[in-house]
Amino acid sequence: MIRFENDYTEGAHKQILKRLIETNEEQTPGYGVDEHCEKARAYIRKECDAPNADIHFLVGGTQTNTTIIASILRPHQGAVSATTGHIAAHESGAIEATGHKILTLPSDDGKIQAEQVKELYDAHWNDVTHEHMVQPGLVYISNPTENGTTYSKAELEALSKVCRECRLPLVMDGARLGYGLASMDSDLTLADIASLCDVFYIGGTKVGAMFGEAVVIINDALKKDFRYIIKQKGGLLAKGRLLGIQFETLFEDGLYYEISNHAVEMAIMIREAFVENGFSLRYDSTSNQQFPILPDDVILELGKKYSFSFWEKVDATHSAMRFCTSWSTKKEHVEMLVEDIKATKG
Amino acid sequence: MIRFENDYTEGAHKQILKRLIETNEEQTPGYGVDEHCEKARAYIRKECDAPNADIHFLVGGTQTNTTIIASILRPHQGAVSATTGHIAAHESGAIEATGHKILTLPSDDGKIQAEQVKELYDAHWNDVTHEHMVQPGLVYISNPTENGTTYSKAELEALSKVCRECRLPLVMDGARLGYGLASMDSDLTLADIASLCDVFYIGGTKVGAMFGEAVVIINDALKKDFRYIIKQKGGLLAKGRLLGIQFETLFEDGLYYEISNHAVEMAIMIREAFVENGFSLRYDSTSNQQFPILPDDVILELGKKYSFSFWEKVDATHSAMRFCTSWSTKKEHVEMLVEDIKATKG
Amino acid sequence: MIRFENDYTEGAHKQILKRLIETNEEQTPGYGVDEHCEKARAYIRKECDAPNADIHFLVGGTQTNTTIIASILRPHQGAVSATTGHIAAHESGAIEATGHKILTLPSDDGKIQAEQVKELYDAHWNDVTHEHMVQPGLVYISNPTENGTTYSKAELEALSKVCRECRLPLVMDGARLGYGLASMDSDLTLADIASLCDVFYIGGTKVGAMFGEAVVIINDALKKDFRYIIKQKGGLLAKGRLLGIQFETLFEDGLYYEISNHAVEMAIMIREAFVENGFSLRYDSTSNQQFPILPDDVILELGKKYSFSFWEKVDATHSAMRFCTSWSTKKEHVEMLVEDIKATKG
Amino acid sequence: MIRFENDYTEGAHKQILKRLIETNEEQTPGYGVDEHCEKARAYIRKECDAPNADIHFLVGGTQTNTTIIASILRPHQGAVSATTGHIAAHESGAIEATGHKILTLPSDDGKIQAEQVKELYDAHWNDVTHEHMVQPGLVYISNPTENGTTYSKAELEALSKVCRECRLPLVMDGARLGYGLASMDSDLTLADIASLCDVFYIGGTKVGAMFGEAVVIINDALKKDFRYIIKQKGGLLAKGRLLGIQFETLFEDGLYYEISNHAVEMAIMIREAFVENGFSLRYDSTSNQQFPILPDDVILELGKKYSFSFWEKVDATHSAMRFCTSWSTKKEHVEMLVEDIKATKG
Repeated sequence: MIRFENDYTEGAHKQILKRLIETNEEQTPGYGVDEHCEKARAYIRKECDAPNADIHFLVGGTQTNTTIIASILRPHQGAVSATTGHIAAHESGAIEATGHKILTLPSDDGKIQAEQVKELYDAHWNDVTHEHMVQPGLVYISNPTENGTTYSKAELEALSKVCRECRLPLVMDGARLGYGLASMDSDLTLADIASLCDVFYIGGTKVGAMFGEAVVIINDALKKDFRYIIKQKGGLLAKGRLLGIQFETLFEDGLYYEISNHAVEMAIMIREAFVENGFSLRYDSTSNQQFPILPDDVILELGKKYSFSFWEKVDATHSAMRFCTSWSTKKEHVEMLVEDIKATKG
Repeated sequence: MIRFENDYTEGAHKQILKRLIETNEEQTPGYGVDEHCEKARAYIRKECDAPNADIHFLVGGTQTNTTIIASILRPHQGAVSATTGHIAAHESGAIEATGHKILTLPSDDGKIQAEQVKELYDAHWNDVTHEHMVQPGLVYISNPTENGTTYSKAELEALSKVCRECRLPLVMDGARLGYGLASMDSDLTLADIASLCDVFYIGGTKVGAMFGEAVVIINDALKKDFRYIIKQKGGLLAKGRLLGIQFETLFEDGLYYEISNHAVEMAIMIREAFVENGFSLRYDSTSNQQFPILPDDVILELGKKYSFSFWEKVDATHSAMRFCTSWSTKKEHVEMLVEDIKATKG
Repeated sequence: MIRFENDYTEGAHKQILKRLIETNEEQTPGYGVDEHCEKARAYIRKECDAPNADIHFLVGGTQTNTTIIASILRPHQGAVSATTGHIAAHESGAIEATGHKILTLPSDDGKIQAEQVKELYDAHWNDVTHEHMVQPGLVYISNPTENGTTYSKAELEALSKVCRECRLPLVMDGARLGYGLASMDSDLTLADIASLCDVFYIGGTKVGAMFGEAVVIINDALKKDFRYIIKQKGGLLAKGRLLGIQFETLFEDGLYYEISNHAVEMAIMIREAFVENGFSLRYDSTSNQQFPILPDDVILELGKKYSFSFWEKVDATHSAMRFCTSWSTKKEHVEMLVEDIKATKG
Repeated sequence: MIRFENDYTEGAHKQILKRLIETNEEQTPGYGVDEHCEKARAYIRKECDAPNADIHFLVGGTQTNTTIIASILRPHQGAVSATTGHIAAHESGAIEATGHKILTLPSDDGKIQAEQVKELYDAHWNDVTHEHMVQPGLVYISNPTENGTTYSKAELEALSKVCRECRLPLVMDGARLGYGLASMDSDLTLADIASLCDVFYIGGTKVGAMFGEAVVIINDALKKDFRYIIKQKGGLLAKGRLLGIQFETLFEDGLYYEISNHAVEMAIMIREAFVENGFSLRYDSTSNQQFPILPDDVILELGKKYSFSFWEKVDATHSAMRFCTSWSTKKEHVEMLVEDIKATKG
């Protein structure tokens, strides 16, 4: 079985492993105050052109989203998100467990637009009974989204502008950020994101690291006491240096971009094979996740050799499926898949 | 600087690293349902003589305690703990953040006794206003404790008996469990613990693993839907197999015991050096943490070469200090420390 | 200004006031264990034909919903509700503040149907990633709904059947229950509701009492320790007897039904006046809330003399408005309103 | 049975009842924005010499404490309180249920002193691992305390000074505030309290009202969005005017002071009877609660005719008991009790 079901089927990029081995016997203080973490922070600050950013390393995505959101909101406030947002759909109520409602905006492709935020904000404040409703307290987006789509710089600028007008911190979930930056549709850089968002994170787990997410806090007002909240939400890794070492490796020589580009290149090969064979795509994704709509017999046929995820039923005989690539995807596997796609009757 | 400040100053045991490298390119499903996790579960069930135990792997201790406790309690219930318990003292309010009070029992050595639990339980239920107070909902202990002490089998049996009479699940925090089992004062085995506790966890982070804690749920009534809670509390690692591989390695050939014994042997060397040199010990610990009471000048002198932790002020010129050993402690470092201790004027 | 804006514009029914005065100097124990509470419980149990029901008195609706729901759910579970449900829309995130997501079902008239619950339940359990999503843990309905509509006995039976099959407690918010029972469209009795729901409450605040809601717990499994949760959520009134006295008065001689019938009679007069004058209704309500769709000029005209609530914009020149009646609505006011409606150009 | 067991055994002061009757048929908007609430606010602002204070009316004490504290703290912060504080001991974990630990300071008489707060604050910030501990976020005191004792102006000034130095909002629970002000040991006025505390509340439930507590927010930084939190925590009474009417009545002509003085006068008669008869007092209370230490036979004897509360066992044959007076305590009852006390063998 060749696995395209998600982007965390293997361990870590060999360069990461190598550095973990090399540093294994170093003795360092715990909880992320070691030199590796400091170096990683410096690389990321530079990459983001954000010399004053606070940078924290956490282990996984749900934990990171929960920690960021719990840190920002007051009890009566909620997080604005697309209905498809990870926090709204796939975190087992982690945000609500910290006391906060998620205020959802409809979205088909996973993105939300500036006007939607403005409308929701105005609707809240124009309602005479607004004190009986959850107050929007921040805006959460994913880039790339859970559907593989990415925000353009213009879209992100518009969102950022509205958020600042409404005094709503803009939070970007970057669990797959590398793959978003590598998308041919994306004209964003880390520095752009740092200038437009209040807080975001750079995903490691799905982009070469064994595990780990780097939170970048740009907005000074949101920096205070963040480490307490990490600890409280269970994200303060004892051997914090493991996170530092990984992000150091990812950012010292551009490895993060290199492996992201590879994954997206692999994804585009798969995309093109489906399209050329006449299959339509559920979302127009040019990042590392592809969502072809396939007839049941093709799903069965490909399923004998490859694992991929069921996404949603489209009609009586077709479903959208998800194929993921990652830093670890082997080109020969993709080529084999491409051949097998071509062999189906699209 | 040679570090004795805590038991997580290095990466992972070389055998663990080796296995992570060997398995790095395997493709596995995510979230702990892979074969490595299954094998690790089988080893642990066997070691615990608990064929029906549910076993889950989480990343760190605070997260594990929070997940277990949140899973068990109803909203009006609290966790009974020693005042010194990790959940009471050093988790930034993680338990309270899930809505639950910690009902503390006084303890100097970190242990609580069966009678204390019974008294607290009776005091609650005998109070006519008990509905205005937090109801005891479980009992949390650490073994070894945060002070290095361990429960004897007789003590644990007595606690377990009272807990069962009071229908209070008994939860053991085993962040350093290996070091407790290796203590010469301990007559407990994993199978004993499994027969006396309702839920406990076997710490990996401090005992050879890079990170990871294995939760063992014995009581059937506490098994339901535990994975939802892990996910909600941010502990469901995407690459769950990393945890499986580590615990597989720790338990397939007795590595867990071997490295625990080493650490305790090292700790006893340190203990004896202090004692022989006339220093008294804050707690009578025979596990991997030692708490000598030292005069300020000795602290300063040893501090030039070794790192260790301040524990508490004892009088105007003396403080208790904490020295930790671990799987990674080098004998030559301990021998050097022992020499340096002997060179002080005790 | 004659007020039809809500159903809590006055104090209490004169019979309630009288009893509060008569009993004012009685000395009773606190917190709802007095004789008045006991009598009220007996009346309600009889009326519900539920001799084993547990009955608790709380002060207001949001508090009551929060207490019931927090008492039932485990941390990873959510409350299924119509999008229009009070808990979903108008309680400032009170349910989320206890850690639980509200799983919403679309509804235009405020009701949810058995099939919707079944579909949501099946969708959850059929999803292979269900552990990453909030588990449905109970079903919340309002009767009458926030839109004035009521469940028929057949609808409630179907809902109840599905809920029992799915082991989802069925919870009914009866903030306006009297007005629902009095609706000509309703074929339900309190005994029916008690036989079909697991927990429900009988609203007092909007139906003659100064304040107060009577929670009726039918399902034995949900009775345990409820008073602790009331206390924790701030609903255990010191002078609990005030609640007992009010419900005693409402239920000893049928006052609850009498005043509910009056309110609905008044509402139907208003409804008919609107309909006869050619206005359409946003919802087909035959309980105490009416939602005519009115042109802006009629709204302005009626607004000079009467207060009523804006509900929603329907088109450029029309909006739905809410007119409420209650136990305290004076017939002469309604007659005046009816005349004024007739005088408008429908 | 003549009841001295608590200070909420009767309904409401007759003047309150009268006003509730007089205003019963008035039609007002809901949720505390009516004219009665506005008038009550004006009276209280004047009495507090705090023209810019925000004033909110809630129903009961636990709800009020929870709402205030949840509104102020960030997730990693806790409320500093005496171990005997109501929030620490008798609210069923209401504060923890909002996610916050209570950081307790030892106290025998119910008061905490400025130095204790300073020490706890310094201990937190001087600890290198403070990020692993709950950060003190506010200081909660009760006046009078749960033990009947009161803060002197000097004590409150010292506390206030330390709190401001440490940037810890000072919150006073005034459930029995009238009785504290009426104590001969108290040299505080409402204006003093308003100048020294950041938030406090003036208790109505125990001081003449049927129910109700008036929150006074002095510190501008703590005013924002408070009504959302009231709503979320279930404290926004639909018929808010009921609270306004009661506080209007209590404060328009000094009724609050008058009835407080009466209660304290009655309490002192009881105190003196016990003292004169040779019984000692558990606490030196000069407010409306008295805590004589009585031998078991006296307890039994008095218990035949009077209800009072068990406080704590003092030795094998003696216990401290609590006798409460209130606005409603009848002088002839107290005189009877005094005679019966004198008839015991002290």
